[in-house]
Amino acid sequence: MEHYLDNSATTVVSVNAAKKAYEIMTENYGNPSSLHLKGMYAEQELVKARRTVAKTLAASSDEIFFTSGGTEANNAALLGTAQAKKRRGNKIVVSSIEHSSIIETAKKLENDGFDVVYINPRSDGAIHKEDVLNQIDSSTILVSVMSVNNETGAVMQISDIFSAVKAKNSEVVCHTDAVQAFGKLTLNARKMNADLISVSGHKVHAPKGCGALYIKKGVRIVPFHYGGEQEGRIRPGTEALPLIAAFGTACDEFKIDENYRKIKLLNDYARKNLANIDGVVVNSAENALPYVLNISAGRVRSETMLHFLEEFDVFVSSGSACAKGKPSHVLQAMGIDKNRADSALRISFSKYNTTDDIDELCRGIEQGLKVLAHR
Amino acid sequence: MEHYLDNSATTVVSVNAAKKAYEIMTENYGNPSSLHLKGMYAEQELVKARRTVAKTLAASSDEIFFTSGGTEANNAALLGTAQAKKRRGNKIVVSSIEHSSIIETAKKLENDGFDVVYINPRSDGAIHKEDVLNQIDSSTILVSVMSVNNETGAVMQISDIFSAVKAKNSEVVCHTDAVQAFGKLTLNARKMNADLISVSGHKVHAPKGCGALYIKKGVRIVPFHYGGEQEGRIRPGTEALPLIAAFGTACDEFKIDENYRKIKLLNDYARKNLANIDGVVVNSAENALPYVLNISAGRVRSETMLHFLEEFDVFVSSGSACAKGKPSHVLQAMGIDKNRADSALRISFSKYNTTDDIDELCRGIEQGLKVLAHR
Repeated sequence: MEHYLDNSATTVVSVNAAKKAYEIMTENYGNPSSLHLKGMYAEQELVKARRTVAKTLAASSDEIFFTSGGTEANNAALLGTAQAKKRRGNKIVVSSIEHSSIIETAKKLENDGFDVVYINPRSDGAIHKEDVLNQIDSSTILVSVMSVNNETGAVMQISDIFSAVKAKNSEVVCHTDAVQAFGKLTLNARKMNADLISVSGHKVHAPKGCGALYIKKGVRIVPFHYGGEQEGRIRPGTEALPLIAAFGTACDEFKIDENYRKIKLLNDYARKNLANIDGVVVNSAENALPYVLNISAGRVRSETMLHFLEEFDVFVSSGSACAKGKPSHVLQAMGIDKNRADSALRISFSKYNTTDDIDELCRGIEQGLKVLAHR
Repeated sequence: MEHYLDNSATTVVSVNAAKKAYEIMTENYGNPSSLHLKGMYAEQELVKARRTVAKTLAASSDEIFFTSGGTEANNAALLGTAQAKKRRGNKIVVSSIEHSSIIETAKKLENDGFDVVYINPRSDGAIHKEDVLNQIDSSTILVSVMSVNNETGAVMQISDIFSAVKAKNSEVVCHTDAVQAFGKLTLNARKMNADLISVSGHKVHAPKGCGALYIKKGVRIVPFHYGGEQEGRIRPGTEALPLIAAFGTACDEFKIDENYRKIKLLNDYARKNLANIDGVVVNSAENALPYVLNISAGRVRSETMLHFLEEFDVFVSSGSACAKGKPSHVLQAMGIDKNRADSALRISFSKYNTTDDIDELCRGIEQGLKVLAHR
C-alpha cells in the first residue's frame, strides 16, 4: 500500500485523462494542422481542451496557449514580456520565493541588462502587497508573483497585489505562476487582475509535458520559439495532443470546493497528529493552502528522513523536486534557521489521499526520530 | 477502412508505445527529480529511454537531450549555437528547403544581426555539397542542412557535406534536422560528422510532444529555457516521462532495413500505378527516400483533391502539415512551375500501409481528375 504524499512534485494521472491520451495516441492521432478530416478531428480535440482549460480561469479560449509545461509558460511570460516592453522600461519585480523557472529566467534577464528586484516574503512565507508596491515605479515593465508557494503552501493575495500595482503604474504587465493554485483554488483571470497566468497539467492529475499560458486579450508577448503557426505562433511545433486532450479531461474533473474541504480536513488531521510527535514543528503558516504542509522533524536531515519513510511506502519531499537536495531558498527567505530548514519535509496532498496515509506518515516520522537520532 | 497516407505529418502511436505511456501515467507516475523511490523508478525509465534513443544514433546516453519535439530541438540547436559562437563569427548557412522551425529561427537570427545564407536545392530537390561549401568561410559558425526533406523525400548526403565543411573550416558547428530520416535510414552520429542532430517522436509511432537533440560530446550550446536542472540544464522543466518512455518503446521497435524494403516496394507500386493515370507527374526524385512520394495531379488544386480523397477515406497532404495551405517553398526552390506546385500532393508511408491503400488512392485520384476537371 503506497502512501504518496508528494503531490506538489507531481500527481498520478486520472484514469479518464490517461484513457483520453491513449485514445488520441491510437485512434484520433491526426495532426491538428493537417487539412484533411483526420486532422480536423484532432483539431476538434484541441479546441475542446482549450475551451475546458479556459473555463478553469474564467477566460476565453483565444487567451489560452498550450505549452510543454509550467517551466515553458513561465519562460514565455518573462522573456516574452521583457522583449515586448524593453523600449518602455528596464525594471522587473519578482518575488524571491518563485520556482526556479522564474528565478533563473529573471537572472538571465538581469544578465541581459534588466534591473531585476527580488521581493522577500514575510515570516508567514507570503509576499505582501506593500513590499511589492514599494518597488513599482515608472520604469517597471513586469511584476511576477506566484499564486501559491510550492514549498510552504503560502497563499499570495494576487488580486490585491496586482490591482495595487496597476493603480500605481497601469502599464506594468502582471504575471502569476499559478501552477500550485490551479485546480485547488477557484481562479478567475479578470478578478486576479493578471495579464499572464502560468498553469501546468501534471500537478492536477494530467500527464507531465503539458501546461498553458493565459495571455489576456490585448496583451502582447514576443514568442521565444520559432517555426510553424501553431498556438498563434506563441508556441510553434506540432501540438502535444495526447497530453493536451488529457489535460482537458483532468480539468473537466476539477471539483475545487469539494476537494478543498476534503484536503482541509486531512491537513487539520495531519497537523493535530504531527503535533503529538516530539520534535516536529510546522513551517507552513496557519492560513497556507491545505494541499501543502511543510514541517521540520527534529535534527534529522530531510534526505535521511525521506529515505527512512520509504520503508513505510511513504513518499514526501525535501523542498521542491526541481531543486534536488539543495537547501531551500524559500525557507531561507522566510528567515527559518538553518538547522530547521535542513530537516524540512514537504507533505503535499491530492484528492486520492486518506487519513491512512497520514497515520503511516506519523508512524514513520515517530520511529525515524527515535532510530535516526542514534545513527 | 482508413487509408492514412500522411505519415510525414504524423503517425499513429504503436500499441506498445501507447501502453507504455499509459503505464507511466497511471502507475510509474513519480517525478524523476524526486529523491524518493517513486522518483527513482521514474528516473530509471528516463535512463532507459535515453539509452534506447542514443542507440538509434549510435551515440552515447549523455549526448541525448529530450525536448518537447523537433521544433524545439531545431530552435535549441540554432539559437544555442549562435549564442555560444557569436564571438567567433557571424555567418550561418542553412538550406532553403528546411522545415519552418529552421527557416523561422534563421530569420530571427538574421534580425539579431547574423549573416544568414540560404542554399537552394538543385532540380533533384537535394542540397549539394559544392553549393554549401562555396558559402563556408572563416566567419562561418554554423551549418544546418536537413537529412531528408519532408515534402519530397530528397535525401541529403549529410556525411559528405559535413566532412567537406569541416575540412574547410573545422570550427563550424554542423547541425542536421533528421526528423524525416530518423527511424527510416540507419543513422550514426559520428559517421554523419554531425555536432547536433534533431529528431522527433511523432513521426516514428511515438506520441506528439517529444523529441530529442543529440549534442556531440564537447560541443557546447547555450540553453534557451531557464529553470531546474533537468536534461543537464539544456531543457529544464519536469520531463514529459509518459512521452519519453513511449518514445523509447517506439525506438525499440525500429526495424529499419526490413521496413525500408517494404516501403520501397510500396513506393514502386505507387509510382507504377500512378503512371497509368493521365495527368499525374511525380515531383520526388528517383532516388528520394521511398517513405515520401510527391506528385502533381492535373490542374486540380492540392486542397481540392485532398478533400475529394477524403470521400475515399484516403488522407494525404498538400506540402507540409505545418504550412497549412501555403504554396510550397520547397517545390518553388526546386524550380517546379507554379501550376504544378499548386496541384502537388504528398503521399507518405508507414510500416502499417499496404497496397490496398495505394489502390484506393489511385482510384480516388483517377476519379478526382475526371470529376473535378468539370467543376
